[in-house]
Amino acid sequence: MKFTIQREQLMESVQHVMKAISSRTTIPILTGMKLEVSEQGVKLTGSDSDISIESIIPVEENGIVYVENIEPGSVVLQAKYFPDIVRKLPQSTVEIESDDRRNITIRSGKAEFHLNGQDSEEYPQLPQLHTEDSFELPTDLLKNLIRQTVFAVSSSETRPILTGVHVRVENEELHFTATDSHRLASRKIPLESKTELPSVVIPGKSLTELNKILDDSEDTIEISVTENQVLFRTKHLYFLSRLLEGNYPETSRLIPEQSKTVVKIDTKELLQSVDRASLLAKENRNNVVRLIMKEGNQIEINGNSPEVGNVVEEVVADSIEGEELKISFSAKYMMDALKSIHYDQVKVEFTGAMRPFLIRPVDDEQILQLILPVRTY
Amino acid sequence: MKFTIQREQLMESVQHVMKAISSRTTIPILTGMKLEVSEQGVKLTGSDSDISIESIIPVEENGIVYVENIEPGSVVLQAKYFPDIVRKLPQSTVEIESDDRRNITIRSGKAEFHLNGQDSEEYPQLPQLHTEDSFELPTDLLKNLIRQTVFAVSSSETRPILTGVHVRVENEELHFTATDSHRLASRKIPLESKTELPSVVIPGKSLTELNKILDDSEDTIEISVTENQVLFRTKHLYFLSRLLEGNYPETSRLIPEQSKTVVKIDTKELLQSVDRASLLAKENRNNVVRLIMKEGNQIEINGNSPEVGNVVEEVVADSIEGEELKISFSAKYMMDALKSIHYDQVKVEFTGAMRPFLIRPVDDEQILQLILPVRTY
Repeated sequence: MKFTIQREQLMESVQHVMKAISSRTTIPILTGMKLEVSEQGVKLTGSDSDISIESIIPVEENGIVYVENIEPGSVVLQAKYFPDIVRKLPQSTVEIESDDRRNITIRSGKAEFHLNGQDSEEYPQLPQLHTEDSFELPTDLLKNLIRQTVFAVSSSETRPILTGVHVRVENEELHFTATDSHRLASRKIPLESKTELPSVVIPGKSLTELNKILDDSEDTIEISVTENQVLFRTKHLYFLSRLLEGNYPETSRLIPEQSKTVVKIDTKELLQSVDRASLLAKENRNNVVRLIMKEGNQIEINGNSPEVGNVVEEVVADSIEGEELKISFSAKYMMDALKSIHYDQVKVEFTGAMRPFLIRPVDDEQILQLILPVRTY
Repeated sequence: MKFTIQREQLMESVQHVMKAISSRTTIPILTGMKLEVSEQGVKLTGSDSDISIESIIPVEENGIVYVENIEPGSVVLQAKYFPDIVRKLPQSTVEIESDDRRNITIRSGKAEFHLNGQDSEEYPQLPQLHTEDSFELPTDLLKNLIRQTVFAVSSSETRPILTGVHVRVENEELHFTATDSHRLASRKIPLESKTELPSVVIPGKSLTELNKILDDSEDTIEISVTENQVLFRTKHLYFLSRLLEGNYPETSRLIPEQSKTVVKIDTKELLQSVDRASLLAKENRNNVVRLIMKEGNQIEINGNSPEVGNVVEEVVADSIEGEELKISFSAKYMMDALKSIHYDQVKVEFTGAMRPFLIRPVDDEQILQLILPVRTY
């Protein structure tokens, strides 16, 4: 196997594929990165059994040559050192070759690295998915769908299904929902054409890693689903993740149909005020803050930490309708929710101090954040 | 105590003073930051017993008012939360007051923090130094003196004196020297006037923290020394450090008088080549690399890691004079030394493969780096 490649393109692909490689894997060959070279270009593969990533560097694109002097073949090299090696090579052109004993040589300028490789035959084959149940999304839209929901997945393995994001099609809308049973984040978007998609639950970690790799240079991404895998594919990227098994809980029951108090308020002001109120309460797990309605459109946000002190702040809402209210909640959950809403104004809908409350952008019904309040006596 | 202050100036001083405050101190009041207000302005103090820092915000400077509405007084507040509180306050003006029960109130905009403070009488008095043995240096020169030496101090407490930088005056030159007995870094500068200075050893940690605080807006810094303290003073900063006791070893004996091989070479090329050669050797403590002279002005740098692989690179020196050589050394020590030398070309002087070698800039006799090679068989 032999090829010459542009270091910049190699570096980018290496960094993408590294996100699927874990040094703590139970299958030794998965600490390696697979290199495959054909007349079409170079393909790098990494996997930790849950996530697998393939990144392709084509021979040329838009008139620029990336790969040349090709002798097809494949090998597996130790992933641990490869990113640093590629990053520190002296020149923009890199020559890589391996012989039949899997001795790998990496050359650039006057520097030469010799690494012991492994037989690519030992590297597991990734499943080839039938692309029947597949549809396309603009990449930036998928990134937003993930960004606005994945933070709300559970970090505990007590109920494994909650560590994933629930993805389903309902009424020609694509729904992403995540919850850890203390708060919920949901986003739906209309789909252009009739799409058949089984309801699936994708591990939060997979989506988080996917979002780090996807950039805006790719316009659309193709999503395919089988019984236990989901594949995200762009022109040069193939990102495969296992799905979580089991039934995702029915979450629409959690969402109150009527609210008793509606507050419209500047998103950033509420966020910064809750942030300040939580500063002294960092020690306790929930960093609870309290919200109290005052006269006019005034809202008081306060936080208290025995022996340290307390914080109190008055914020002016744009409007308040309905019953007066005093309610306590986790500052972290509120801040997570507000940070995910990139609109200037939010509408917070309360149903008393004991029931979940909703946070939505004022002008967008597609995004929904729900938080369960905390009881205080 | 009461005052109104500009948040930006308060933030800067808080960040400086925080560098002397440790949450792990054995004296509880030292987890606090002392605030003292007088008609001259505000003074913040922090200390961990080894290092003490006072930062002053004057009432006004260059026509800009920083502090007003002053009622003199003092209090100690918990340092743990103060930086975050100041950083997240909503407006550029901050009002701080404390009553006679040490209840502290911090107000900005509509936000109000209440903290429990402590009596400033309980805060230890910092020693007032006689400024007899003192001299001035340009601030940027002091920063360089520190930067080019402090990295070489010992990180082990086996020989505590080596954890400090040796500062002395000799032949009307100011010398800074640091060594961990494996490598040494030294810089000397001529002093303008006759300066009497006892030979002192300043903890490396103190100088590192000092360098983080000093910026180039201060032209000069005054340095005063007593039996067991050193004081660095600028217009608004007072930085006090204890000195290390004991006799610093005589290091000039280590420096070979004659060399057998002299290599002149581009600093960056040597640095990057050694960096690459050490990539595979990260596991072993010394990350040893080898240097071998070749024909002409060629030098080979190589590194080897059993089971992983090896690296080899040819570098062209600008000139090589003297005996042929094969030598091994720690890549980390070589890279530390080369990174501290901000000159394009260095002169490396070897005395065989078993004796220390020197690295100096080609055009500057003031800077000296010395490294003990590693034996290989």
